[in-house]
Formats: sequence, C-alpha cells, structure tokens
Amino acid sequence: MPVTLRNIGLLATCRGEGPQAALHAIPAAALVWSGPLIAWAGAERDLPDAYRAVPSEDAGGALVVPGLVDCHTHLAFGGWRAGEFAERVLGRTYAEIAQAGGGIASTMRETRAASEDALLERARGFLDAMVRLGVTTVECKSGYGLNVEQELKLLRVYRRLAGESPVTIVPTLLGAHVVPPEYRDDRERYVSLLIEELIPAAARDGLAQACDVFVEGGAFTLDEARRILLAGKAAGLAPRLHADQLSDGGGAALAAEVGARSADHLEHVSADGIVALAESDVVAVSLPLASLYLRQAAMPARRLLDAGVAVAVATDFNPGSAPSYHLPLAMTLACILQGMTPAESLKGATLVAARALGLEATHGSLEAGRRADFAVIDAPDVEHWLYHFRPNACVRTVIGGTTAWAA
Amino acid sequence: MPVTLRNIGLLATCRGEGPQAALHAIPAAALVWSGPLIAWAGAERDLPDAYRAVPSEDAGGALVVPGLVDCHTHLAFGGWRAGEFAERVLGRTYAEIAQAGGGIASTMRETRAASEDALLERARGFLDAMVRLGVTTVECKSGYGLNVEQELKLLRVYRRLAGESPVTIVPTLLGAHVVPPEYRDDRERYVSLLIEELIPAAARDGLAQACDVFVEGGAFTLDEARRILLAGKAAGLAPRLHADQLSDGGGAALAAEVGARSADHLEHVSADGIVALAESDVVAVSLPLASLYLRQAAMPARRLLDAGVAVAVATDFNPGSAPSYHLPLAMTLACILQGMTPAESLKGATLVAARALGLEATHGSLEAGRRADFAVIDAPDVEHWLYHFRPNACVRTVIGGTTAWAA
Repeated sequence: MPVTLRNIGLLATCRGEGPQAALHAIPAAALVWSGPLIAWAGAERDLPDAYRAVPSEDAGGALVVPGLVDCHTHLAFGGWRAGEFAERVLGRTYAEIAQAGGGIASTMRETRAASEDALLERARGFLDAMVRLGVTTVECKSGYGLNVEQELKLLRVYRRLAGESPVTIVPTLLGAHVVPPEYRDDRERYVSLLIEELIPAAARDGLAQACDVFVEGGAFTLDEARRILLAGKAAGLAPRLHADQLSDGGGAALAAEVGARSADHLEHVSADGIVALAESDVVAVSLPLASLYLRQAAMPARRLLDAGVAVAVATDFNPGSAPSYHLPLAMTLACILQGMTPAESLKGATLVAARALGLEATHGSLEAGRRADFAVIDAPDVEHWLYHFRPNACVRTVIGGTTAWAA
Repeated sequence: MPVTLRNIGLLATCRGEGPQAALHAIPAAALVWSGPLIAWAGAERDLPDAYRAVPSEDAGGALVVPGLVDCHTHLAFGGWRAGEFAERVLGRTYAEIAQAGGGIASTMRETRAASEDALLERARGFLDAMVRLGVTTVECKSGYGLNVEQELKLLRVYRRLAGESPVTIVPTLLGAHVVPPEYRDDRERYVSLLIEELIPAAARDGLAQACDVFVEGGAFTLDEARRILLAGKAAGLAPRLHADQLSDGGGAALAAEVGARSADHLEHVSADGIVALAESDVVAVSLPLASLYLRQAAMPARRLLDAGVAVAVATDFNPGSAPSYHLPLAMTLACILQGMTPAESLKGATLVAARALGLEATHGSLEAGRRADFAVIDAPDVEHWLYHFRPNACVRTVIGGTTAWAA
C-alpha cells in the first residue's frame, strides 16, 4: 500500500541532470512511496488521484532531502585518541605523533585487542547516531587491523552491521592504510600479503566492495598503490584512494589512471591532478572535518567543481583526524572552508556520494523507482539548513520506506 | 533538603585558583546541593556522613562540569540572513554585503518590524535549545533596534525572558552596534542620542547591566567608543567592547583604559594590545564561530593566555557572522583554531565567562556556596568531550538545583 507525504515545504530531489548546484527542488511538494521504493515525487497540486486516496502524512512544511550518504568513514575501531587532540592543539603535528607510535598505529593496537562483538557494539552506536542526523547510507573502511585476520574481522563487523541495520552499508578494504610495524623493515612483504592473500580473501567472501589505498609519504607509494588497486580491481573491488592529503603525491592522476570510483582528501591536489580528474569519472571526496581538525588547507573544491569534477562531501569519521560523524557539520564546513554552495554541498552528500559508492542508480536522489531513503529537515530551504548550524536539524529519517528515527 | 549526586566519573570544578588550564578536577566525585546552592563538592569517599543519608542520584560515571556560560550573544533578532551565507561562500565579503544594505542593517529592519512578543518567542526557542547543550547563563545584547524605542524593546524581551526562564540572563545595551541608516550623515547626533537618552533610559529601568560598543571601521571610532563607554560606566553599566575584529583598531588598549569587563573578538589584536590587556583585568572573549563563518584569522588565544590574559569562549550567536548557538562547538573550535587546550576552553566557557559578566562570585564554578548550575556530560573527561564532537554530549542540565532538561 503506498504512503503519501504531503505538505512538503521544499523537496530537494537531487536528480542527476545538470551541474552539481542543480537540486531540482520542488516547492509545495508531495512524495509517495510503496514498500522500499519511491512511487512518485512532484508538486502536491500534481499529485495523481490514485495517490490522494492512500494513507497520508503531513511534513508540516519542512524541507525533505534524500537520505544522506556518508561515503567515507572508518566506522569500526578500538579506543580513542583524545590525548593526541590535546597535543596537536599545542602544536605537535600529525606526522610527529605518528612517528612516536601514536596515530593509526595506536588505533591498530586497540582495534586488534578488541573483540568482534565489542567493535560491532560500538559501530552500532555510531550508526544509530548517524541515522538521527538523516544519514541512510554509510561506507565503512577496514584499515585498523593491518593483517589478514584482523582486517577480515573488521569486514565481518560491517557484514553483521549490514545484516541488522536498515542502513545501506558499503564495506571497503583498506588493508593499505599504513604498513604495520611488524613489516616496517620489509614493506614489500606486506604489499604482497595484501595482493596475494587479503584482497582475494575479502573479494572471495564478498566482504568488501571496494579497495582503498592511503597514498602518502608515511603510507604507500604511487607504485605500490597502483599494484594494490589493480589487484583489487581484478578481484572485483572498485578502486578508491586517499590522495594528496598531506602533500601532493600524484594521487589524483593515479585515481584517473586506474579508473577509481573516488579520490578522497585532495587537500594538496595539483593543477595537473585537477585536469586528470576532470577528464575522468572519478569523484573527488571532500573531507572538511579532517582539514579542520588537522588545521590543514582545505580541498580546493571550488576549483574542482569549476573544472567539472563532481565533489562529494563525507565525514572521514575516525578516532584521529576526524573524530566526528556529524555529516551536516561537514556539509556546512564544505561551504565555509571550500567554497561549495549549500546546494552543491547537499548534492555532494547525496547523489554524488552515492556515485562514489557505485550506487547512483538506486540511492542519493528522490525519483520514482529509487529507494525511499529520505530525511525531513526543520528548515525552509537548503541554504538555511546549512547556514544555521544546530545540534540536529533532522526531525525524521526514513530508510527503505520505513521510519528509522523520528524526533 | 539536600540532594547528593554520586558516582561522578570526573567533576571539573573550575575553581579559580591557578592558571586557566587548572580545572581542579576530582575523579570519583560527589556533589551535594541544597535548594539553589551547592552545599559540598569533593571525592565521593570524603562525602560527609550527613550527606550520605540524603536522597541521592547516580551520575553513571559521567563527567560533570559547571553550567556553561555563553557570555556573548545577540539572542533576539528578526529574520535570518542565509542568503548572505551563500554569497560569502562564493567570495563576497562581509563588508561588501554590509555596504549593499545587507548585514546588520538588514537584521535591524526585520527586528524593528517584529513585535516584542514575536521576538520573545524566537529567543525562548533558542534559549531552550541552549539549555539542552548544558548552557545555564546567557549574555544577551540589544543592537538590532538602533533607536531608543527599538533598543528598549529588545531589552524588554530579555527582561521577560529572565522572568520566565531559570537561565541567568545578563542583558547588555549594544545601541552602538552600527550607526543606523537614518543617522548616516550625522553620526554625532546618534552618539549624542546614545549618551543622552538611550544609556540613561536603559540604566534607569535596570534593563541593562553592561554597555557594549562595536569599534571598527564601519561602526564606531575609538573616540566615539570612549565617550559612549564612559557615559555608560557613569550610569552604572559595565563597559564591554567588540574590538579588533576585522582590523587592529586599538580596541584592546581602549578596553584596558576604560576598565572594561571584556574585549571581545580580538582577531587582529596587536602586540601592544595584548600587553595592555595583560596589565588589566579585562577578559578577552574569543568567538571562534564568527572567525570560522567569516573565514577570518582566529583570535591568537594562545598568545593571550601565555601573556597572562584570561580568555573566555562564547558563541557570538547572531543571524549574520555566527548563526549557531552551539557553545560546545565553539569550545572545540577554540582548541582547534586558537590553540586553547580543552581545559582552558572549558574554564573559558564557565568561570572566565562568568568573570566577563561580573558573576564570578556566584556562577561558573562548582564549590560550596556557589549556584548549583551544572551539566552532566557523556564523556570520560574534558579532552574526550571536546575532541569527539557530537550533536549533543550533554545528558542533563541542572539550574539552581533544579533539572532544567534531561535526555
């Protein structure tokens, strides 16, 4: 039986045509869904008679947007790193902290020590909080296990989460996050382990959909990344990259070369890198919370958009550089720090983010036939929502046609 | 009858002795209050027998902090300015927008057009949301009326709010926000109006406790500010300044000269200005949300603290440069953007903020005899709270011994 949501003040459909700033927003709108899918979306005055007779709900004049898609998170991890935050405030750098055994290696130790059940319980708590913010799809990376057994443990956490939650979970293998300490003197052995054991195991069991590599001075070289990403691709895992975050390392060009779904971070992307991305189908994923927390230059999103690159917005939620899962805050920061308009930021956290996950045919926009994933926002329009930052402006989250949360 | 809160994981008392980083935090603590005042605070094992027998509540191991003090807000205003946000994102400056009739003048028009009742209802909604974040004291500025009748209207809104809310409201006259358009060609007449009519009226009716001036190119000169602040002081209104926000205008030195309670903003304070503040009792009020939203350099809070200046943290909540009342976000930003430690940031939003309001003898710290205003925070310690930014980590707000909000 279909359900009609009437009296929508503004329906930001986020359909794909046109530039990223085109939200194809409809004032005084209605939205009809049937089971998990949208049956109709449009101006309420055009509502077909058939849908006027079905049970209806009142949106109270609110803004309705597609369910938010957080396309870059490190959702499952052990421990926290609040002490490093206090150190960075006083001037210690992320690199210095990593060299002293902190950073990713610190979370790796706590993640390895945690049970699968304990990691699942924590990740579930984060996910529930994200749903209350209007998030309905979450990409989840491994990357704190850093050996075959521990990386697969993290991916199993995500599989169990996907089984119990209405949220669409997209698991990504990030075995190539950093070279773990036990392979420090033989990084080639670790790269081989990834290519010969971990990637095949993750792909064989369907535990991951994508394969990600952190390309950076302290992590993996361009050549290593190319080998890992191509091995992943051959095994059916879509390539993604952490690229040009702390320095320009040529990651953007590599993303284009290997046909990656996304190049993420890009705080230091070069002019050539922007050209390479513009000539490809790679989505640039902006992570302004990480830029803020690390006091880095932000990704030049305005330049990327003006060059024709699609720019997604995500949280990068992790216990070090971006210890917040607040995607609407990231969207506001994308406007302030990166020159994205509120409309571009919203499309970046919905349809464009879905594209970075290979889900653009089903997720991220409100059109007949797409998933009935949407958020009801207490704001008259997108500009007001992202400008007037509040703890939570979302009043209701619907996933697959079912209310997952309501204020 | 006293009430005892037991099983406090960490009680950050924020007592005044020592540097701003000294929170005098007590692990495994208890807190006793009787009516609106604290009767006892200390380690739970030291709880006097008399307080073991009274009704007790369990804090579940949470962090307990003094009720937050937002010592700089423009709480009551008409309209919003989301459109300006979208323009600034694309590169238009705050000054350009103001020259085109936007900015403060735009909010002035909408505030003048709004009824006292309508302004009260909106301000009440913001205040309720602030209480849920753990805020228990709020300074409220006029400044969008900009004539005698309209400024007094705003101050009456705050008086009514103080009468109905448990929150401690501190009203400030900011008639000298900008020169209103009708006096543009005769600013001296507006300054005279402030000195001869508005200040006496606000002081006579007890509608304001402080008098604030925006010292800046497009607002008031140093000489005008001095005359206004001294007239206010003579009438019993404590001086405060918006100083050195968009440029170094000598505001810090003027604050010291007139014995101001606070100099606020200070993004561009000079080295001489820092020395002047350090030799005075003026509190520097940091407003990192405004710095963020305007993409300005942040106040050099680290240098001010190291020079011996007390630095408060506040939201600057207003519809233009800081459209968020999220004080914990401002506290996190004070760490990230200004080099304050989490401990300094908390003391800056409690005891030091209370000092900027002349309330340090009663508000802002948890000690016997002080007000029983406190917030229960879901975090193991202050570092974790301000590092792991969440929509709202506050689970309970107590004002004057009574629970004003609980999750």
